[in-house]
Parts: sequence; structure tokens; C-alpha cells
Amino acid sequence: MHIGIVGLGKMGANMRTRLRAAGIEVTGYDQNPEVSDVPSLTALADALEDERRIVWVMVPAGDITRGVVEELAGILRAGDIVIDGGNSHYVDDAEHARVLAEHGIDYLDVGVSGGVWGLENGYGLMAGGDAAVVDVAMPVFDALRPEGPRDEGFVHAGDVGAGHYAKMVHNGIEYGLMQAYAEGYELLTAKDVVHDVTGTMKAWTRGTVVRSWLLELLVAALEEDPSLGSIDDFVADSGEGRWTVDEAIDNAVPLPVISAALFARFSSRQVQSPAMKAVAALRHQFGGHATKPSADG
Amino acid sequence: MHIGIVGLGKMGANMRTRLRAAGIEVTGYDQNPEVSDVPSLTALADALEDERRIVWVMVPAGDITRGVVEELAGILRAGDIVIDGGNSHYVDDAEHARVLAEHGIDYLDVGVSGGVWGLENGYGLMAGGDAAVVDVAMPVFDALRPEGPRDEGFVHAGDVGAGHYAKMVHNGIEYGLMQAYAEGYELLTAKDVVHDVTGTMKAWTRGTVVRSWLLELLVAALEEDPSLGSIDDFVADSGEGRWTVDEAIDNAVPLPVISAALFARFSSRQVQSPAMKAVAALRHQFGGHATKPSADG
Amino acid sequence: MHIGIVGLGKMGANMRTRLRAAGIEVTGYDQNPEVSDVPSLTALADALEDERRIVWVMVPAGDITRGVVEELAGILRAGDIVIDGGNSHYVDDAEHARVLAEHGIDYLDVGVSGGVWGLENGYGLMAGGDAAVVDVAMPVFDALRPEGPRDEGFVHAGDVGAGHYAKMVHNGIEYGLMQAYAEGYELLTAKDVVHDVTGTMKAWTRGTVVRSWLLELLVAALEEDPSLGSIDDFVADSGEGRWTVDEAIDNAVPLPVISAALFARFSSRQVQSPAMKAVAALRHQFGGHATKPSADG
Amino acid sequence: MHIGIVGLGKMGANMRTRLRAAGIEVTGYDQNPEVSDVPSLTALADALEDERRIVWVMVPAGDITRGVVEELAGILRAGDIVIDGGNSHYVDDAEHARVLAEHGIDYLDVGVSGGVWGLENGYGLMAGGDAAVVDVAMPVFDALRPEGPRDEGFVHAGDVGAGHYAKMVHNGIEYGLMQAYAEGYELLTAKDVVHDVTGTMKAWTRGTVVRSWLLELLVAALEEDPSLGSIDDFVADSGEGRWTVDEAIDNAVPLPVISAALFARFSSRQVQSPAMKAVAALRHQFGGHATKPSADG
Repeated sequence: MHIGIVGLGKMGANMRTRLRAAGIEVTGYDQNPEVSDVPSLTALADALEDERRIVWVMVPAGDITRGVVEELAGILRAGDIVIDGGNSHYVDDAEHARVLAEHGIDYLDVGVSGGVWGLENGYGLMAGGDAAVVDVAMPVFDALRPEGPRDEGFVHAGDVGAGHYAKMVHNGIEYGLMQAYAEGYELLTAKDVVHDVTGTMKAWTRGTVVRSWLLELLVAALEEDPSLGSIDDFVADSGEGRWTVDEAIDNAVPLPVISAALFARFSSRQVQSPAMKAVAALRHQFGGHATKPSADG
Repeated sequence: MHIGIVGLGKMGANMRTRLRAAGIEVTGYDQNPEVSDVPSLTALADALEDERRIVWVMVPAGDITRGVVEELAGILRAGDIVIDGGNSHYVDDAEHARVLAEHGIDYLDVGVSGGVWGLENGYGLMAGGDAAVVDVAMPVFDALRPEGPRDEGFVHAGDVGAGHYAKMVHNGIEYGLMQAYAEGYELLTAKDVVHDVTGTMKAWTRGTVVRSWLLELLVAALEEDPSLGSIDDFVADSGEGRWTVDEAIDNAVPLPVISAALFARFSSRQVQSPAMKAVAALRHQFGGHATKPSADG
Repeated sequence: MHIGIVGLGKMGANMRTRLRAAGIEVTGYDQNPEVSDVPSLTALADALEDERRIVWVMVPAGDITRGVVEELAGILRAGDIVIDGGNSHYVDDAEHARVLAEHGIDYLDVGVSGGVWGLENGYGLMAGGDAAVVDVAMPVFDALRPEGPRDEGFVHAGDVGAGHYAKMVHNGIEYGLMQAYAEGYELLTAKDVVHDVTGTMKAWTRGTVVRSWLLELLVAALEEDPSLGSIDDFVADSGEGRWTVDEAIDNAVPLPVISAALFARFSSRQVQSPAMKAVAALRHQFGGHATKPSADG
Repeated sequence: MHIGIVGLGKMGANMRTRLRAAGIEVTGYDQNPEVSDVPSLTALADALEDERRIVWVMVPAGDITRGVVEELAGILRAGDIVIDGGNSHYVDDAEHARVLAEHGIDYLDVGVSGGVWGLENGYGLMAGGDAAVVDVAMPVFDALRPEGPRDEGFVHAGDVGAGHYAKMVHNGIEYGLMQAYAEGYELLTAKDVVHDVTGTMKAWTRGTVVRSWLLELLVAALEEDPSLGSIDDFVADSGEGRWTVDEAIDNAVPLPVISAALFARFSSRQVQSPAMKAVAALRHQFGGHATKPSADG
């Protein structure tokens, strides 16, 4: 088997490495000629020799993915398969599939989890699309997913869109999990009762109900920097947490924990919260409570 | 009628003024001799001539209120009435009542709302204690409460503790209301659609569903400083919001809004959030996401 | 002045009444011939005699409003003014304005608050659109808004869309306020400390920090039915609360209170919560905690 | 080594089994003579032969644990060690230690996690108390904890109280984690995009960022009953989630996620929510919105 990968950033390059280690030939294309195996998407397509050529797209979601899909629609031939492994919004998948279907090209959307550790551990994969197409690509999935039973690291979740929908929800859960550990960490540090906070969280990594891979990562972070003194509390958010809450609202699903985790990230990025300024102003108005003068004004 | 007030801070002094304006004689005692009418609690008691002397205590909740109550227990005589108008935790009231009852002294707990505006507008009052004792003090309540029907500014809420319980819940609600307006304010300012934010909130003060006194205060604050640029987003919290959530937890009452408002205040006071540092550290561990180096380290 | 109103439901019919009482002639059109003054939109337009005819649209947001706007675009003439007073999503306003502008027809979007009480009290109004067009319609706004200074019941909030944006935020705040009072009500009833819950909330209506029109309505509801025994806890939500949270997410504004209020409504409508079934199942798995067998299965 | 265990419920009995399998002699006492090895606490103490006898208390927190500790204070001798392995509130530990210290008896508090799976997998352990005393009991801890490095399943977290404080925070985190997965599960089921919900969550158990033991348990539950149709959404809560939020409030730590998870449990147990009745009543008052008549009234 010989597939193409478009996008050789951290994720794409690691996936190329893992696939090659599993005996799958990979030709990679990237805008950056220094990391690209071929000079163009056309050259990439030409390099592939399978009857049904597979091109795995691993570029930023939104306009960039859209652009690559449209370009591939003009380059590939009927029967070829495009797989979007990026973090696309699931509503984009129908359009991607439509554009490609006009040329007889099949489309799969695949949610990929595992971050930088996927190279070594394998990636959790959630695929959406036609079952027969999934079957064609299965050797790729088997090479990328972790060792162990297939169904513990791969799922054919449903039709086109299901892979990214599943990944969206996965990431929403991730927000909630991270915030839960983080709140617990803060509470451990807030009062001088537990003297060994890092050790306590490390002791949770086996046997306890809260053991998880994320907990192991947090312990690793604390072992490097027990007070997290080198890290700012500014937390970015990718689109998927937002999409998760948007989707919940559309479907009248209460999401108190995941939304709270999302909002905590928004707050973390505010130097001054306009809302809390308003609360401070209100307290001053009715109670004559002192406000803290702004450092700015 | 001639009553005593202990504690002549902002609230106590204003209440003295309002009572006197209503024709009730008031002798005030404060630790600060410059504002006190008499040199001691004993002198205060001696100044009162009613058969059942009333002493209104308006000092900080907790140990200070407890101390004043205990001192009054030794000074007053059977049939006298002590009213705690401060922001005491309702669980303290049973003990206050017990200490005084040993000397035959009656006790009322009264939640008082209205802040600095109470002097002019009158204070909303919630009383706890024996109905017959409430009746004796009714002229005081009538003088302090706003004009209008008595039941729109005063309630005998229940037995000892009910007044402060009602005030605790009142303040919990207040947290939620303030945060709701504040979030709306922030959303109005977040996107350049509504050009006149102050004017919009002012237009809400008549006719709309959200009209309220708090809204009028927020408009007043915005008219003074439309961007709230002179105010820091640091928001203190008195004990009553905390007690409200504690009480809800004890009684298995879900309080998502009031607790969120309380936590928003906690967050507003953190320069760096340990929890969000932990989330940032986690993101870095699994995804190689860049963290923002701490300004400190 | 003689204006047209399209849509004579509860809101539209009341507004017609209030306008007429203020000396403005109104011709109303409704699909329901029993309440309509004229048989068609064309007849409505023909009935109006002002140089710049004003048609106030008061129909359900979304497709129905869109349809009426498009129909009016074909009926009215250049210089006429269409006002959408319904609860449209502000993103629809740009399209409405565009459709009408093709025919030289002006457009204003006006958020209207006040519910069934607006007939008597007047409506809070937030307008978006061109200032010169707002001026033409000002007699209508003055008739609809509450008595008192214009700027306490009306605002020209910004360009097209600003009126509905302001109304969206207004409704989001409303969700938070209602939930805050409701949580406080529940906490008052949860423990047998405050014996007179209705009386306590009524005593808050004057003098206190939490006094508001919503509080007065809640007291009215409690006076009718102190235990609210006749009312189910099922709470619908209109689109505006959802749009508020969606908008906050788009703009990275933390909205913990308003979102919690929205989610509480979602939860109130679930007979069984799939999420809490999952939590119950989890507890059973790890702890052998008993689950309650479903009444269904 | 030969230790005593007081309380042979699910946890205590399993721990006895695991300790014996590790070569530690155990004599167990339970109020229920059918499962008890000895007829009384005195008989239990007499059965132990080590110089410093260890009695592990595994009974319900609160009064029952307190009673056992007080009884043991009268039975054991100086140098003996009482270990409270139950889910006691950490504030009780100081008192337990004091009561025992009067008789020269040492005290350790140990948080134990792992549920019914601990028998096989080992228990995560967090100990509080004097280091020298911890050392004496280390063979017990080594037998109970999971295989692997000691510091991944055991921690000496701090002085008396630290073990239960750590366990309290552990359980608070657990609430948040469970709710995050549960919300994600609900969102997967809310819309017909992901056809294979169980398979999707199973595919997350390897390689993904959200993989954890709790996730594996949820998958096991879904494999037994994919729609969770046999389970009611009623979710109990033990005290530890409540203590976690109380503790956060005392220390001004924002805990939006963990508190939301706690409140979701409270809500899950309400047949009718008084708060949401109040919101429904309010909507009816201002908007004439229909309420759903209560099934009860």
C-alpha cells in the first residue's frame, strides 16, 4: 500500500513516520518544500500507484482543508479516496463529500486523537463514511491505531460527518476532564493540609477511580515544575470545545460541566473581565463598597 | 419610644438618622468616641427609658456581634429586647437567643437590605423571633422600612434565625442578579453591534422585563464611567454568598447560577489561577501546545 | 400618522390598542380574518396614507418574518419603512435590510420587551437602523414606550441589527435573573426556617437590593399559588437564550450564569436525563452502588 | 504481621481477602456475627500479637467511625495504631487523633480508592499522620496498593487529616470526570450522526486523550445495556462531593466544574424542581406563556 499525506506539521509528519514503520509507503506533501517529499499535490497523486489511491489530508480545519479538498477533486480520479484527518467541524464534511463525489471520489472523515504521543502509542480513530470505503482504508487505520483489539482504538462511527462529530464530543469531554483535575489540583494547593501535592496526584495513577492518561500527564508536568511557576494561566481553546457547546444548545442538551470548562478558558485569557468590573461597580453603587482602582486608570 | 443602637458605622449611623427623622429617640454607642452618643454600653442602657428597652446591634457579624450580645446579656434586664440587624449567619442566632434568654432578655434577628440608599429609601426588613416581641418593636421597623404597605418592606419570616436566613438567601439572589447583568453588559461590549451600551441598558429601566433597581444602579455607574475604565475587576465577597451555597449543599438544592456568580468573584481576585495553569500544563503535555511563559518565572 | 401592523397575536394586537389610544391610526393585518382589519398585505399597504408609510411586522421570527419582509418588498414603495418588532435573530436583519433596500425601502429592527404588561405599562424598545429613519418612526416609538423620559424606555442602539442584538442580550439577562430568584425561592422552601416564603419575597419588593419587576411578578404568582402546586417544572425556552450563549461563545465571553440558566431549562424538560443515567451506571460499575431500576425497563 | 479490621462490609471484607492473599494475617470484626471472625472489639484486640498492634477501621464515616475510635481508645494500649480507612471528613481526623493520643495510641487517616475492583487491582491509598507510624504500617499499605512502583499507588500526603483531605479532593475530581463523560455520552445520543455510540466510546479507550479507567467502566455499562434503558437517572451523592465544594468555598477556590457535577446529581433526584416551577410561573406572569399543568395538581 502506498498513500499520500497532505500536511506534514507535527501531526502529519508523525503519522507518516508511524505508517512507514508499519510497512505502508507514504509520500507526503507540504507547502514547506523543506519537509515535503514532492513539489505539488499533482506530484503527490502521480506518486501513488494503488488502484484506489488514498490521500490523507492533515491540515488546519476550515478554509485550508476546504481548499485542499477542492484541489484534490480536480487532481484525483474516480474511485480514489480522500480522508480528512484534521479537526474539521462535522458540518463541513457533507460539503467535502459532495465536492469530491462530483468526481466519483470517495470521502472519509476521521477524528484523530493522541497528540504528540500518537507516534509512539498509536492514535485513537473515529471514522465517518461508507463502510466499503472504510474497508479499503483499514490497513491505514490499523497502522495508525494503538496495538490491541481494533475496536479499542478505532470505530466506524457512522456516515460522513460521524467521525468529526465523535471527535468534537471527545474534545468537549477532554475540556471537562482537564478542568476537573485542575480544580482538584488547585484545591489541594489552597490549604496547607496535603504537603505533597505532586506525590498525591501521582499516587492516584494506579488503583484509584480517577486514574487516567491525562492524570499521568499532569503528574509529569508537576514533576517537572511542582508549583507550575513557569507556566502562565492563559489557556487557548481550539474550535472543538465551542462546537460542542453550540451543538448541545442546538439539541437542548444540558452541558453544565463542559461549558463551565470552556468559559474558564475564556476567563483565563482576560486581563480584566468587563463583567466583573460591572459587578464591582454595582457593589460600589449600592453599598459604597470600595472598588480597587484600575491599574490602568 | 427611645431605642439604643450599637455600632455607628455607615449602616448604623444612617439608621439612627432615619429613626430620628421618624420621631423615634435614638442613643447610639460606638467604640469610636467621636461618633458615639454615650461612653459605654452601660451608659447606653441607662439612657433608655422604655419599660422594655430595645437595643439594636449593628456591628460586624461573628465574634464582634457575639461579644456585644454577651455584654448586653449582663447589662440589660428581663423583658428588654436585643435586635441583631447585622449580617450574622443564621446559625449564630440560636446561640444569641439562648445567651440572652438566660437573663430573660428577648432576641430578634433582622435581615436588613438597602445599603447606603436605605437612609433615603428605607430598608427592606426580614425579622425572626417571637411574634409578641416583633410587635413591641414594630414602630422601629415601620420607621426603618420604606413607605408603602408594610408587607412590601417588612416580613416576620419565622422564629429566631428566620430573618438572617431570609437575608442570606436575599444576598445569594443578589449575587446571581448582579452577575446576570454583568454578563449581559460584557456581551454588549464584546462585539461592535450595539454602539450605545449605556443607552441600551438605560432604555431597559422602564417597561422591560429586566428592569430593576440594580439595573438603575448599573446605568448610574456607566453614566459616570461608560467603559468602567476606572474600576478594577476585583470583586470581594461577603460571607452571605458563601453561606447560601453551603446551605444549598446541605439541603441538596441545586444552585447553578448563584454558585457560578460566587465562583466568578473568586476568580476575579486571582492574579494567576492555579487551576488554569494546570490546564495549560496539560495541554502542553499532550499536544505540545505552546504555553505562555509566566511573567513571574 | 397611520401605520400598519402585520401580525395581530397577543403582542401585535396589544400594540395596536396602545398606539390607537395614543392617537395613531393603525390598520392591522393578520392571516386570521377574524382579527384582521384588512384582507391582505396589499390592502394594508393601500390603507396607509403617509408619505413614508410604516409597516410594523410582529410575527414569529425566522421563516415567517422572512416571508412577510419579502412580500412587503414587492408591495411597498421606495421611502416606505418596514420595522421588524419580532424576536428575530440579529443576523437575519442584514438580509431583511438588503431585500428591502433593493426596492428603496428602509428597515429598522426593534427589540420589544414588556410582554402582556406592555399594553398598560408601555414597552421597552431598542432600535437598530439609520438615525434618519428612526426619527421618522419616533412618534410610534413614543406611543409604545412607557411614560417617562424617552431614554429610559427607548434607545437607538446602533445600525441595522443592533436592536435585536440588544434584545437578545436582554433576554439572556432575563434568563439569569429568573433563575437567580428561582434558586433563592427553592432554598427558602428547602428548610423549615422561613415559615412565610411568599411574605418574605413580598417584603423584598421595596427597599431591598433585589427589588425588581420580575420579583413582583413572582410574588404575584406565589400569592395565587403559594406552593406552585398547580404548575409543572417544565420550562420552555425561546431562541434568544440560545443565541445569547452562542454569541458569547463566538466572542469568547464567559457566560457562566446565563448558560447555567439555559441548561436548567433544558434539564427541566427531560423526563430522564441520559447523562445522569450514565453517571448512575458508572457509579454502579465501580462501586457496586445500587442503581434505581428505571420505571420504564 | 497480624492486623485487625473493623467493619466487614463490601470494602472491609475485600481488603481482608487481599491482605490475606499477600500473607498478612487478618482478624476481622463486624457487628454482624455471621461475617465476624471474633465476637467483640476486645476479642479482636486480644487476637492480635504484634508489638504495635494495628486496627484498620472500615466503617461508615461520622458517628459510627467516631464510636469505634472511642471504643478502641479504651481497648488498645500505648503504641498501638488505629487506621481510619473509611470516607471520614478530614476535619474529624484531628479529633480521632486526639482521643487516641490520650492513651498513647497512634492514628493514621487513609483515603482508599478503587471500589469493588480494589480486591483484584489493588487500592489507591493516601495516608495522613506521622511518618514513623506510616512506616510501621507500610507492609499493610504495600499489600493493599496496586502492583507497580509504590509511589504510583500510595502517598504519605501529610500530617493527620491529609489522607482524607486528599481522598475528598479525589472524589470531587471523580464527580467532574463522570459528569464530563456523561455529558459527552448524551450529546452523542442526542443527534443521529454517530450511529454506534458504544463503539465510539470503546474506541476511545486506547490512544485517545480521554482514555481512562472510568471510560472503560462506562463502556462496560454500555455493552451491557447500550441505551441504559434499565437504569434510572437518579444519582446519589456521598458526602465527599459536598465537602469538596464546601472546602473550596472556605478557601475561595473557584470550582465551576465540580460544583456543576454535584448540582446535576441534586437535580437528578428531584421529581419536580421548585426552582423551575418558579421560572415557569414567572414566564406565565410576564408573557402569558402557557405552563404545563402539574400532574399532581
